[in-house]
Amino acid sequence: MPQITHSKIDSQYANRRVLITGGLGFIGSSLALRLAAAGAQVTAVDSLIPEYGGNLQNIAPAKDKVRVNIADVRDRFSMRYLVRDHEFLFNLAGQTSHLDSMKDPFTDLDINASAQLSILESCREYNPGIEVVFASTRQLYGRPLYLPVDEKHPIKPVDVNGVNKLAGEQYHILYHDVYGLKTRVLRLTNTYGPRMRIKDARQTFLGIWIKQVLTGQSFEVWGGAQLRDFNYVDDVVDALLLAAGSPATVGETYNLGHQEKVSLIQLAETLIQVAGEGKFEIREFPAERKRIDIGDYYSDFGKFASATGWQPQTDLQAGLERSLKFFRLSLAHYL
Amino acid sequence: MPQITHSKIDSQYANRRVLITGGLGFIGSSLALRLAAAGAQVTAVDSLIPEYGGNLQNIAPAKDKVRVNIADVRDRFSMRYLVRDHEFLFNLAGQTSHLDSMKDPFTDLDINASAQLSILESCREYNPGIEVVFASTRQLYGRPLYLPVDEKHPIKPVDVNGVNKLAGEQYHILYHDVYGLKTRVLRLTNTYGPRMRIKDARQTFLGIWIKQVLTGQSFEVWGGAQLRDFNYVDDVVDALLLAAGSPATVGETYNLGHQEKVSLIQLAETLIQVAGEGKFEIREFPAERKRIDIGDYYSDFGKFASATGWQPQTDLQAGLERSLKFFRLSLAHYL
Repeated sequence: MPQITHSKIDSQYANRRVLITGGLGFIGSSLALRLAAAGAQVTAVDSLIPEYGGNLQNIAPAKDKVRVNIADVRDRFSMRYLVRDHEFLFNLAGQTSHLDSMKDPFTDLDINASAQLSILESCREYNPGIEVVFASTRQLYGRPLYLPVDEKHPIKPVDVNGVNKLAGEQYHILYHDVYGLKTRVLRLTNTYGPRMRIKDARQTFLGIWIKQVLTGQSFEVWGGAQLRDFNYVDDVVDALLLAAGSPATVGETYNLGHQEKVSLIQLAETLIQVAGEGKFEIREFPAERKRIDIGDYYSDFGKFASATGWQPQTDLQAGLERSLKFFRLSLAHYL
Repeated sequence: MPQITHSKIDSQYANRRVLITGGLGFIGSSLALRLAAAGAQVTAVDSLIPEYGGNLQNIAPAKDKVRVNIADVRDRFSMRYLVRDHEFLFNLAGQTSHLDSMKDPFTDLDINASAQLSILESCREYNPGIEVVFASTRQLYGRPLYLPVDEKHPIKPVDVNGVNKLAGEQYHILYHDVYGLKTRVLRLTNTYGPRMRIKDARQTFLGIWIKQVLTGQSFEVWGGAQLRDFNYVDDVVDALLLAAGSPATVGETYNLGHQEKVSLIQLAETLIQVAGEGKFEIREFPAERKRIDIGDYYSDFGKFASATGWQPQTDLQAGLERSLKFFRLSLAHYL
């Protein structure tokens, strides 16, 4: 399959009206910047809840080009208005912390399930032709029964977040099957890059590792032998744009993933080598997290590659270099 | 395996404190009557929403033995109190209408998912030793990929009800896996018998067929060739009691089902033959239901049979005879 180029992907979004929920978050803002550069008319919806990923600094480079609308996806009335008059909806808002989902399962349910249902109801009623991409998570596979994990792998959430994200994505597929909405679901694996949350581990452990390295502190690796795959954010943005622009993906669910599989210790060593500084300690997996530990995980993303030609373009070394470069320049905004 | 007898099942519930949500409904009241006869101390919780299955008449034969508590499972405060001081919880309250779940998806979500989460949170906090059985549905398998459908069959809900019931059952299993709650899930197939809702098709089409036969009206069979399995309610009560009383079932999900598979036309003919009256017309499947039609369905219930020795004892002919006898004697209370 010929390689897909950025310019080819981006050209179809020039002058198009695009709504992004979670648009000030890590992935949402990366998508907003890319779309703004491609000439799209972007509205970024975000509630800027301090514990979540939204950060106004994230869209600073395009603050005159991206329309920011502060609203929570749980606010049915605002969402009902906002979904109108857009041609694309990238539905990225979510509660992503697994520990938070266990401590406050109702908030997780409201954001990851109820709000998704109300967004879909709004689309059905007011904008049934909108192209929708929902960002889901590989977390809902639970502990893998086989590797790499494809979309046929049984679902077995290991936390409340997984149950609710599953409901959220199932509503999306159901509203396609029953009402003909143009929805598709991407199940993201670990995603990293500029604009990720690094002040704590709420979004990913890699965030806090980067912070510790850049602030001269040692970071902790829990376990260490577990294999994972990691997508650099630009590759995920490619995937989102390809999915929304490809009619054949409607009603389907796809894994993202990466060819490279690395253990957490390899990841830690690569990070330190790229940074030219830093150190880490290996710890036993903490008891309260052990219950939701899933062992090795990496994806089979062949279904999405076949449907759209997508391939991750960025290897771990290059992705970490770009991430560290970004955070060194703008660390103060992310601590 | 030796056949399990009623008296053997029932003896372990003498003097035990049992809470039943949906306890005035079709299956809940049948369970309450059986437990009251076995000498259990039964509390039946029900909101008596007119569109649902609750009916005070259902527990009339034991109205001095069953404690009735009117409360809605969405009422977190009441449930928080009610789960205490009980040894068993049969969690049967639910919104069961597939069409209603599409017309009002939020109510379905509140009852079938949110309320389940809050019941489990209450158990975790106030009564972590309680034995819990959650009644789920075969609906969440969607259109079968193979027959008979076992528990490994992929999940693909065809309506909002299926998405929410799945979340409800996944919370139950998760609260076992993470917190050690003694939960198990039974996925019921079509259940019928005395005390079912017959005034409309909200609970099952067979309800309205029975009403039409007993009131001298013709009933409609949609399609007709679809195969189904049917459980008589007493067999489902056996299953619930066996599940709650069997430590080995904790954390597991089981199908119920029946050896007999009948087409809807065979079912209609058997009903008329047993009733000695009645007629029906075959109709094309209505367009608005076609989207959620699942074709043939019947269960493999071998996993539950192996775990508990359960086997359905009542064939369709005998079950329909008992059902018609019941409704002929008390029709006025069910119209």
